[in-house]
Amino acid sequence: MSPLKSWFSIPRGSHFSIANIPFGIISTPTSKTPRVAIAIGDHALDLEVFAANNGFSALSTIQPHQAVFSQPSLNSFAALGRPMHSVVRKYIQSVFAQDTPYPEVLKTNSALQKKALLPLKEIQTHLPFRIGDYTDFFAGMNHAYTCGVMFRGPTNALQPNYKHLPVGYHGRASSIVVSGTPIRRPNGQILPNPTAEKKVPIFSPCKKLDIELELGAFVCKANPQGVPVPIGEAEESLFGVVLMNDWSARDIQAWEYVPLGPFNAKNFGTSISAWVVLADALEPFKTEGLENDTEILPYLQEKDTKSSYDIQLQVELKTQSGNSSTITKTNARNLLWSFPQMLTHHTITGCPLQPGDLLGSGTISGTSNSEMGSLLEQSENGKTAVKLSGGEERIFLEDGDEVTITGVCGSDEEALVGFGECVGRIEPALEF
Amino acid sequence: MSPLKSWFSIPRGSHFSIANIPFGIISTPTSKTPRVAIAIGDHALDLEVFAANNGFSALSTIQPHQAVFSQPSLNSFAALGRPMHSVVRKYIQSVFAQDTPYPEVLKTNSALQKKALLPLKEIQTHLPFRIGDYTDFFAGMNHAYTCGVMFRGPTNALQPNYKHLPVGYHGRASSIVVSGTPIRRPNGQILPNPTAEKKVPIFSPCKKLDIELELGAFVCKANPQGVPVPIGEAEESLFGVVLMNDWSARDIQAWEYVPLGPFNAKNFGTSISAWVVLADALEPFKTEGLENDTEILPYLQEKDTKSSYDIQLQVELKTQSGNSSTITKTNARNLLWSFPQMLTHHTITGCPLQPGDLLGSGTISGTSNSEMGSLLEQSENGKTAVKLSGGEERIFLEDGDEVTITGVCGSDEEALVGFGECVGRIEPALEF
Repeated sequence: MSPLKSWFSIPRGSHFSIANIPFGIISTPTSKTPRVAIAIGDHALDLEVFAANNGFSALSTIQPHQAVFSQPSLNSFAALGRPMHSVVRKYIQSVFAQDTPYPEVLKTNSALQKKALLPLKEIQTHLPFRIGDYTDFFAGMNHAYTCGVMFRGPTNALQPNYKHLPVGYHGRASSIVVSGTPIRRPNGQILPNPTAEKKVPIFSPCKKLDIELELGAFVCKANPQGVPVPIGEAEESLFGVVLMNDWSARDIQAWEYVPLGPFNAKNFGTSISAWVVLADALEPFKTEGLENDTEILPYLQEKDTKSSYDIQLQVELKTQSGNSSTITKTNARNLLWSFPQMLTHHTITGCPLQPGDLLGSGTISGTSNSEMGSLLEQSENGKTAVKLSGGEERIFLEDGDEVTITGVCGSDEEALVGFGECVGRIEPALEF
Repeated sequence: MSPLKSWFSIPRGSHFSIANIPFGIISTPTSKTPRVAIAIGDHALDLEVFAANNGFSALSTIQPHQAVFSQPSLNSFAALGRPMHSVVRKYIQSVFAQDTPYPEVLKTNSALQKKALLPLKEIQTHLPFRIGDYTDFFAGMNHAYTCGVMFRGPTNALQPNYKHLPVGYHGRASSIVVSGTPIRRPNGQILPNPTAEKKVPIFSPCKKLDIELELGAFVCKANPQGVPVPIGEAEESLFGVVLMNDWSARDIQAWEYVPLGPFNAKNFGTSISAWVVLADALEPFKTEGLENDTEILPYLQEKDTKSSYDIQLQVELKTQSGNSSTITKTNARNLLWSFPQMLTHHTITGCPLQPGDLLGSGTISGTSNSEMGSLLEQSENGKTAVKLSGGEERIFLEDGDEVTITGVCGSDEEALVGFGECVGRIEPALEF
């Protein structure tokens, strides 16, 4: 299928082609109230302004609900459900199509173009959702295996439960920030000498600050408490996907995490990309994830095993001296469990989900060093320095380091479905 | 100090004496919109109606903020800060005092009494807060020790970190329900034979459904991301306290929790009592918690170590046959860490808290069997049945069991500061 052409100028190679239409929350210096927009090429289409100027005049189904575009989060739009997201996305695509059936809406309406089409570089993006609960899974099997070997040796690298259920834990919703927000290095308790028999912690800035390359999926449908979401219906509960960097303090984690799991090591900041790529836009890029060689229980069995995504992922590290290095290239296929499986498992006890809840995939790594989504893996927990350009190297992150995750589906430069970037820069720890 | 007397009829032994004035959210059959109230004796004072009828005419500081009483949660009232909670509570006490300086407000205003004073048995209570994030700690040292002995033996019963930091994990905010809400037994993965070498789980209703007797503390003050709350300021961030039952699926937990901690075992329901007892009301009942024989880091050191509460706690189990047995009697002193310490540790990395966040204490147990706050401890993980009245016994909870936690401070029957009850009844699991 040749890609849809647009009358609007979309640069070749843009993540936000007409095939994409990701949703986000924006504001501008002259209109500071956050509201809903989509990204297209180098621009955002302000959907509040678009709706107020009869932009949706040819889409009657959305008209009773247009107030959702004036909200400061995507929660209300998401709650309208997958069929409505689909209709709205397709309508916006048709408005931008070269041969749009509605030229008067935007193509020939230069007044509305001027009001509603805003250069991305002139807008501010905000957290796309009011996130009620955030859950982080551990579905990146290569990551789980590599870390398991590091801490327990190859025989017990994966725990006995790993291939039977999507291991996960509840994260801290309040610490999630939108791409671009600086991340302050945390202070906390660390063990200066972990192998000593007597364990006496010190108070210190984190010395093993790390990244975790992940995907995040937003929930769009509530299930009542006590009522699980069957695997066949789980996709209807998934709104869309973002890039995620689950910043991690490895030394704080190593000391605190027994027996209840990671806590302070993970609650100082989690960055997500600003534009949520709808599940519909990712549909053509569905693929099989990692093979599970274990017989799984029926409630987790999917009819269609092509439920992972073929997303090319990349991590860049730019040091304070300005050198930029690509430290990771991998693919989102590297997951043992799909988002529908994570969601169904999450609700099997009757746990209620709400629109705006976020599910993290867990760190996505391939098997070779340059495909690993954390410095913990690449540096073998500090044993081997990761080489950067300009002769620099890293064990873990240093102050001033800026980490940028990018992700994109497809190869046709006129039809990319990309996520833009998820970026964060490390600020020095507070002094005590 | 002799207790404050009231012109209003408050039954002797009421948890809601004039010394208390706990806050909650109520609705009535004729006025279904949830709003703020306080409990006094057998009644609730509807603060929306009270405010609308000049009830706060003699308290000018609250007047610009009276809209908080029309909210469906205590979040906005809580966000006004500790000094305002104190002023409002004291004013309401003075309105109910025998020798009130404001008799015209309520004492001699029978019209307003009729409108605003509602019998508790005629109202419905709701979840008191819109809970952003929920964190559950593990500060009940006797519980941690007993469970540690059970799973690891007495030598390593407490992990090396236990006395250095308040161990905790992020919980599931969406699954918190108000007292009285039924709890459905969860389904999930359990190991039919945990000691077998080959670990193959089955899908089953939870067979080890348990209670956890806890306190919960609500946060009233936000700290910005990256900015910890010093221990000396932590009390200013604590609104008040509720009883909590953190229902737990022990068999699901045993299989799933390695290596990231409890997840589905804890996200199907957590019950809290409806009336939040303000930190101010608990001030006279402050006491030392369990002694920590370990030198703790300065950021956790409190000036005043009387930062736990002397609350008499009790758990009753009523079976489907109608027999009711007191299975636990203990005291909230049985905590190694105070709420200010938990809060400060939580934020030391810069984790942002918000008004309405909930901190759970962890299971509160004494050292003898009848003082233990979970059936896991009392039955030694199923080895010994817990004797109930009427010849019944329990290992873990059965369908139809109703568990009621009560808690009260003080002994003067005219000046009790109590929490009412936190009750939940087990419904059968969904059939698959």
